Amino acid sequence: MPRYAGVEAGGTSFSVAISEDPDTSKIIESSNFPTTTPEETLSRVVAWLKDRKFDALGVASFGPVDLDPSSDHYGYITTTPKPGWGFAPLLKAFEHLGVPIGFDTDVNAPAFSEATIGGHGEKVTSCAYITVGTGVGVGIVVGGIPVHGLVHPEAGHLLVPRRQDDLHTTFKGTCPFHGDCVEGLVATGALAARLHIPASDLPKLPDSDPVWEITGHYLAALCVNLVLTVSPSVIVLGGGVMNRECLYDIVRKKTLELLKGYIKSPQLTPEKIDKYIVRSKFGNHAGLVGALELARAALQRK
Amino acid sequence: MPRYAGVEAGGTSFSVAISEDPDTSKIIESSNFPTTTPEETLSRVVAWLKDRKFDALGVASFGPVDLDPSSDHYGYITTTPKPGWGFAPLLKAFEHLGVPIGFDTDVNAPAFSEATIGGHGEKVTSCAYITVGTGVGVGIVVGGIPVHGLVHPEAGHLLVPRRQDDLHTTFKGTCPFHGDCVEGLVATGALAARLHIPASDLPKLPDSDPVWEITGHYLAALCVNLVLTVSPSVIVLGGGVMNRECLYDIVRKKTLELLKGYIKSPQLTPEKIDKYIVRSKFGNHAGLVGALELARAALQRK
Repeated sequence: MPRYAGVEAGGTSFSVAISEDPDTSKIIESSNFPTTTPEETLSRVVAWLKDRKFDALGVASFGPVDLDPSSDHYGYITTTPKPGWGFAPLLKAFEHLGVPIGFDTDVNAPAFSEATIGGHGEKVTSCAYITVGTGVGVGIVVGGIPVHGLVHPEAGHLLVPRRQDDLHTTFKGTCPFHGDCVEGLVATGALAARLHIPASDLPKLPDSDPVWEITGHYLAALCVNLVLTVSPSVIVLGGGVMNRECLYDIVRKKTLELLKGYIKSPQLTPEKIDKYIVRSKFGNHAGLVGALELARAALQRK
Repeated sequence: MPRYAGVEAGGTSFSVAISEDPDTSKIIESSNFPTTTPEETLSRVVAWLKDRKFDALGVASFGPVDLDPSSDHYGYITTTPKPGWGFAPLLKAFEHLGVPIGFDTDVNAPAFSEATIGGHGEKVTSCAYITVGTGVGVGIVVGGIPVHGLVHPEAGHLLVPRRQDDLHTTFKGTCPFHGDCVEGLVATGALAARLHIPASDLPKLPDSDPVWEITGHYLAALCVNLVLTVSPSVIVLGGGVMNRECLYDIVRKKTLELLKGYIKSPQLTPEKIDKYIVRSKFGNHAGLVGALELARAALQRK
């Protein structure tokens, strides 16, 4: 039975794990290293991996990353503002391990595992994976394959209309690039800025606070634009902000409201929308499971 | 040398053509039939095809269509408001011709041919094809494959922010579903409604009319959201409204302005954007060439 290693490269920490076929979500062993310099972090991760046996490796990284195998910078983290990590040759650190390597973003990887082993139905070949936390990340799989192009999906920054009753507030959104793009409207920093409270106080708010209703509205606008663009078989929502359980039903209801019946599909009905916009069954391990699925796919391709 | 037949099924007329390998854009013979009832239209098209020799057929249809081969309604035009055509079994009419058939929407098909033979560079594996006319259609190819999912791309209806100086006009957008979605803001009917003129007068407006600037703005918002979602290698813009030549440079400039440098790519720079947001070299034949490329791909798959 093949064994897989997964690395989730995050801006705060790197997670590593080993799993066995057939279900890469069954993690045998895992560990965690704080993200310091590239040299230090990667040498710790590689040392951990070298002590283990595995047949393929998957790396799911914070971005932006270069996913073009024909590029000189393939496998690099590219223009990140994170000090020390700009154009860091991430993948090079793992090449001498001598196993097939799968590589993608930390949101495309979980989109991939949601499509393959997420349990969303046999006909699922596409998926949008949205994580809402200090940022908004969106990974997309189409036809069973993570979406790569000029770069990779960055749909957390989609431009969406401000809602009529939210237009004339003093809150202008917190995205340093776009102001009130989706991320600038619903990431934790945005919610905190809107309410003039520290982000750490957000969990203390009651479900009845109006901020959840407007947050659900903008997440629904994101879902609507994803439905209209890539028509995913399923949308998986996760991340810290989505620990606010009541958000799921708000997003579902408003997605249907904003679509206004334009897209006809059994999934886009009040009866089935709770099977269409869902949480991940992998919880906090979604990124790692994604990395392990990249490993499985890399071994299969070999 | 194989021969291909292409059918572009439009709401106003059906176009048919024959081409030869290797360049499906070299059309040998073509014809055109008005769209009346499904029975009459399809029998005329099939009669024309039966008189010709070809090895594969491609059908590019107005939508929505069912693209799921495992569905009972595969190859049907589904919930169209066009009288008589709701749940019309389009593809069934061609099955007895006994050749491999490729089938997709009338916007995915040209997105496909733009990616394969559009001349946009060797590394092009993805493409967004936007047509702006009485409606706004968007076809998308990712990883060399037209995007299918729950349904198919309908990104002409993307929700985008109204521009600050356009917020308080009396113009509310003309989309019967969404009001001021992209289509409701920039389709010919929308431009005419904004200006209180008949659509037939639009070509008489000078390039200096402010309507082109605001139209370019919203088309740029569409391009930005496509870049952020599927990160296409190239965006091809066509359709009647884009006969207004000056729109191309407006869309290019505003796409960069709205992205605000967030996506780093050589293509997304003032120097290269005119190679990124482009017109189709197939002009009015883009749909037919798309259908012929579907035929070529169907034969290749066989």
